Amino acid sequence: MGNADLMYPSSNNTNIGCAHRVAIPPPKPFFKSLKSSLMETFFPDDPVRQFKNQPASRRFVLGLQYFLPILEWGPRYTFGYFKSDLIAGITIASLAIPQGISYAKLANLPPILGLYSSFVPPLVYAMMGSSRDLAVGTVAVGSLLMASMLGNEINASQNPKLYLHMAFTATFFAGVLQASLGLFRLGFIVDFLSHATIVGFMGGAATVVCLQQFKGILGLEHFTHGTDLVSVFRSIFSQTHQWSWESAVLGGCFIFFLLLTKHLSKRRPKLFWASAMAPLLSVILGSLLVYVTHAEKHGVQVIGYLKKGVNPPSFANLTFDSPHLTTAFKTGIIVGVIALAEGIAVGRSFATFKNYHIDGNKEMIAFGMMNIAGSLTSCYLTAGPFSRSAVNFNAGCKTAVSNIVMAIAVMLTLLFLTPLFHYTPLVVLSSIIVVAMLGVIDYPAAIHLWKVDKFDFIICIGAYFGVVLGSVEIGLGIAVSLSFIRVLLFVARPRTYILGNIPNSMIYRSLDHYSVACFVPGILILRIDAPIYFSNAGYLRERISRWINEEEDRIKASGENSLQYVILDLGAVGSIDTSGINLLEEVKRITERRGLKLVLANPGSEVMMKLEKSKCAEIIGQDWIYITVSEAVGACSYMLHNVGKPNPKSGFEESVV
Amino acid sequence: MGNADLMYPSSNNTNIGCAHRVAIPPPKPFFKSLKSSLMETFFPDDPVRQFKNQPASRRFVLGLQYFLPILEWGPRYTFGYFKSDLIAGITIASLAIPQGISYAKLANLPPILGLYSSFVPPLVYAMMGSSRDLAVGTVAVGSLLMASMLGNEINASQNPKLYLHMAFTATFFAGVLQASLGLFRLGFIVDFLSHATIVGFMGGAATVVCLQQFKGILGLEHFTHGTDLVSVFRSIFSQTHQWSWESAVLGGCFIFFLLLTKHLSKRRPKLFWASAMAPLLSVILGSLLVYVTHAEKHGVQVIGYLKKGVNPPSFANLTFDSPHLTTAFKTGIIVGVIALAEGIAVGRSFATFKNYHIDGNKEMIAFGMMNIAGSLTSCYLTAGPFSRSAVNFNAGCKTAVSNIVMAIAVMLTLLFLTPLFHYTPLVVLSSIIVVAMLGVIDYPAAIHLWKVDKFDFIICIGAYFGVVLGSVEIGLGIAVSLSFIRVLLFVARPRTYILGNIPNSMIYRSLDHYSVACFVPGILILRIDAPIYFSNAGYLRERISRWINEEEDRIKASGENSLQYVILDLGAVGSIDTSGINLLEEVKRITERRGLKLVLANPGSEVMMKLEKSKCAEIIGQDWIYITVSEAVGACSYMLHNVGKPNPKSGFEESVV
Repeated sequence: MGNADLMYPSSNNTNIGCAHRVAIPPPKPFFKSLKSSLMETFFPDDPVRQFKNQPASRRFVLGLQYFLPILEWGPRYTFGYFKSDLIAGITIASLAIPQGISYAKLANLPPILGLYSSFVPPLVYAMMGSSRDLAVGTVAVGSLLMASMLGNEINASQNPKLYLHMAFTATFFAGVLQASLGLFRLGFIVDFLSHATIVGFMGGAATVVCLQQFKGILGLEHFTHGTDLVSVFRSIFSQTHQWSWESAVLGGCFIFFLLLTKHLSKRRPKLFWASAMAPLLSVILGSLLVYVTHAEKHGVQVIGYLKKGVNPPSFANLTFDSPHLTTAFKTGIIVGVIALAEGIAVGRSFATFKNYHIDGNKEMIAFGMMNIAGSLTSCYLTAGPFSRSAVNFNAGCKTAVSNIVMAIAVMLTLLFLTPLFHYTPLVVLSSIIVVAMLGVIDYPAAIHLWKVDKFDFIICIGAYFGVVLGSVEIGLGIAVSLSFIRVLLFVARPRTYILGNIPNSMIYRSLDHYSVACFVPGILILRIDAPIYFSNAGYLRERISRWINEEEDRIKASGENSLQYVILDLGAVGSIDTSGINLLEEVKRITERRGLKLVLANPGSEVMMKLEKSKCAEIIGQDWIYITVSEAVGACSYMLHNVGKPNPKSGFEESVV
Repeated sequence: MGNADLMYPSSNNTNIGCAHRVAIPPPKPFFKSLKSSLMETFFPDDPVRQFKNQPASRRFVLGLQYFLPILEWGPRYTFGYFKSDLIAGITIASLAIPQGISYAKLANLPPILGLYSSFVPPLVYAMMGSSRDLAVGTVAVGSLLMASMLGNEINASQNPKLYLHMAFTATFFAGVLQASLGLFRLGFIVDFLSHATIVGFMGGAATVVCLQQFKGILGLEHFTHGTDLVSVFRSIFSQTHQWSWESAVLGGCFIFFLLLTKHLSKRRPKLFWASAMAPLLSVILGSLLVYVTHAEKHGVQVIGYLKKGVNPPSFANLTFDSPHLTTAFKTGIIVGVIALAEGIAVGRSFATFKNYHIDGNKEMIAFGMMNIAGSLTSCYLTAGPFSRSAVNFNAGCKTAVSNIVMAIAVMLTLLFLTPLFHYTPLVVLSSIIVVAMLGVIDYPAAIHLWKVDKFDFIICIGAYFGVVLGSVEIGLGIAVSLSFIRVLLFVARPRTYILGNIPNSMIYRSLDHYSVACFVPGILILRIDAPIYFSNAGYLRERISRWINEEEDRIKASGENSLQYVILDLGAVGSIDTSGINLLEEVKRITERRGLKLVLANPGSEVMMKLEKSKCAEIIGQDWIYITVSEAVGACSYMLHNVGKPNPKSGFEESVV
């Protein structure tokens, strides 16, 4: 008995005699459990919580406030806030104007659309959004994606009108999708885009966007429609004679200037305005330079005429009966999801900084409404670009009022200042895009992924090279499928461990993890680290047989006592289906055939309920199901040392009592 | 003091001061861990185990035996075995002949193909298969699926030659797919077809097959090409004037006779030959009846001329350059997977009866080779039909030699007896199919699913009605997507529980499950029951916040001490990715903001390694990570009473202080 005493040092203290039975969970009526699982699936944050025990009028106000958060924080708005928001709003407007024009060029759309898109959508978001730091506007990756997906079907330069209408229609679909995801509380679909996917995909898209800027910087007239590295380089180096050195020098200078201000702002956060104002300053400087030197006649391309006036309506331009409807729909769905994923990630990261909460579903409704409104007023896809939001945050914005200020500044520009952009050289816009995009390539994040999780790194790199060497869609496809394969592999190949006793304790842990843990003689303790489902039942059968084989080989080699008991620790088996129950019955038969006894430890409530309902608990024997591994081991080793066999709990109890 | 003692019985024995530290698992080199996870994914059963420490010659023999199991059991074959196999082989041949002809009609193929398919494939399987009970032949569901998928593209009656060639090509693709799944050890793909899916799908397909038999039983000349309930009933009732009462009466009699023998065999297993011989007897009786009464001239359709001779080669008929290649390929893939899933399930269930092991990957290679060989010798898709295998089992077969006996019997039939089937009425074949299919509709299994697992039941019913009301493909699509949604939902919405202390123990279990478990004052213990991944990190953040809210509400209502500690039990978190690590950091911030302390308990090896590598362990504090929930609770309540803010109201506290 000495050996057993060493192994179970506290068996004297904890009275094993009154072993705890595994409870059979109280039965739940079918509809009640259905209701609770639907609640968990669609309302995990319990949004109706605050509506409880309130009079009807208050409920109405709360409901309005839910959809229009401005009604909630508006009454508490102060003049002090306004001063901060005013400064932040003007700062982001100075960034929004050149960026808007640049991104619209990226999307192969008329430059003025970039300004339109910084007017209406920010107003909608200011009323409906729950982030205080998000600055609304067009996004580089969304613009690129739109150009690439619509461009596969329609040539923007040959058929600009149709292309424009398709862009509005795609934006409309994106908005409808976003709003419905939010309304139907399906926000978790966006969760399937993992952090690694987003890092890789965004980095790849930023690289592609940078590559496209060689067109502007080298002043090339013709350029490939492909976005992949190979076609871009082939396009660049096949027309070396067309390179415009004036353009390249100008571009180089502006990139250097922008990078310098950016570096400065990073080193001294107080100088945030330097990087925020630099793009506008570059535009002004560049335009002046072109105007003075008439460089537009020497190979430096300029924006040209921009129409004065605010957004014209575009209801009539949405086309739902064209043969290209499916393209518009597909484009809308994909850019909508990507824009949401980026926007919500940006909003969340600033919210965590400032310690407030962002409701994902509410944000989706806000994004959706702002894109629907945008598509009716000549805007294209808008979201919350990281660069602009970071400037907003650094400029000290307090609420979404900064978006309103920006919208008013853009409106004034549209009404009075558009002629000033006539001479703005395209190379400046390209430089602005390049510098913004270099910030999006988040290589430290990729290094972090490599260190922490190799599979995440592979997903990230897969997405990156898929975008850079293939296309944006291919990269996204690779990343999403790898993410799914990861989840499915986890479910198809759950880990199983042998547990050992940690000396001087009743704790049983994996031998791989704790080098101090040691085998329990005559007993094999296996832990299954995942739910048992149809997808892994076959694997587990093989694997458990193999563990038993290996353990028997080890015992034979070491000359210990032969194996008598197999304890399955089901503590981490959160869920089980009918195939899983069949597996347990099969394992019971396999162990019996080998003359071993199967013991279950620590089944959770769902597992226990299904064991009971399927009569599998009877097959295994109620007496062979223990609440903890240590009680199971206690019972088994008592039997090994004292009794010959049967009646585990009763015999065991007698002796202890 | 008594109360505290009850709560933490071993706090005197286990010195909290030297509590067990959570080990940081030993670092594993990247390539070593990659190799081991690839091994687990593709070789869970470690097939090279027996090759270790063997001379080269022995290894060669073992390798041959791996691919041709007959070399392994052949030398041990005895005359006693042969007697049993002979009886079983003749019995299944008597079933194989009418069934083969019936299923070939079902697949819209010439009836003779059913006989061809019972000759070559069983011989191949006898050499390569590892099941001793499987009887090889064509299968009803596979035949139906082939007719439906190929029939969408080619009309079998208008273009029978092309249709036949497509059937061979599809069979070839099915074989290649099956063999490669086995060779590349991708057998787990078949595991994704769950038991519930197969029950529902097979039941639906059997119902559809029965519905199709109304054509033969009512003697209708024209019949719908649709397989769904609506089109079949519309087709039947739109031509009531065409019903042939002679045919219907004959059909009714045979169905009654077949059901009677089946019932008899079920009641008395010794009379197994009754149900096995009944189909052949029906064929003989029916043929005699038609021959004598010349019923073929009164609306009773007969098989007609069958060519004498064994399988002609069909190498030349495989067509890889036709415009229908993709159809043949798609059909091959789908019927191949379905046939595999059915065949392996059947093989496994008999193997469990007789206590021997079936190697899934080896079976796949055998199935694949038998279909490749079949497609070159005028056979179409073969697998292991349940009905035939059950007869084989009941007839007392010992090894796969019974398949060889059956093949020889079929060969003799092909060489000498085909003219006898000239007068066999189609209505007899329909009756045989109906009775075989009624056995496939496994409604007790569906009832069992309803009792044990509602979601499995929904999957089963979805597959059933998808097949019956839509089409075979729709049903399969519904079932597979529901199965995937189930897995994804599990990963997207993991369950979380509040744990409570089980009185008189150091055990902490879910309050939902154990009604005796009780709250620990001032401490909230949450258990997360799934790996933490990108797909559920967002949800868990919401859910944990909500648990804290609810717990604070409860405490406020009950007037207990305020909440001070949140313990996360990570025992069931088998795996974590970078999004999961971010979540833990976020939870740390959330709890800090609320003035609570976050404590982790029982992280597994992967979780601990990633916590360490990502520096998250430092953020949370190494001292706040405990090996068990009870040690964490012990430490927290020690702090609550001795260091933290005391609250004299609680009796619990007084007793400790």
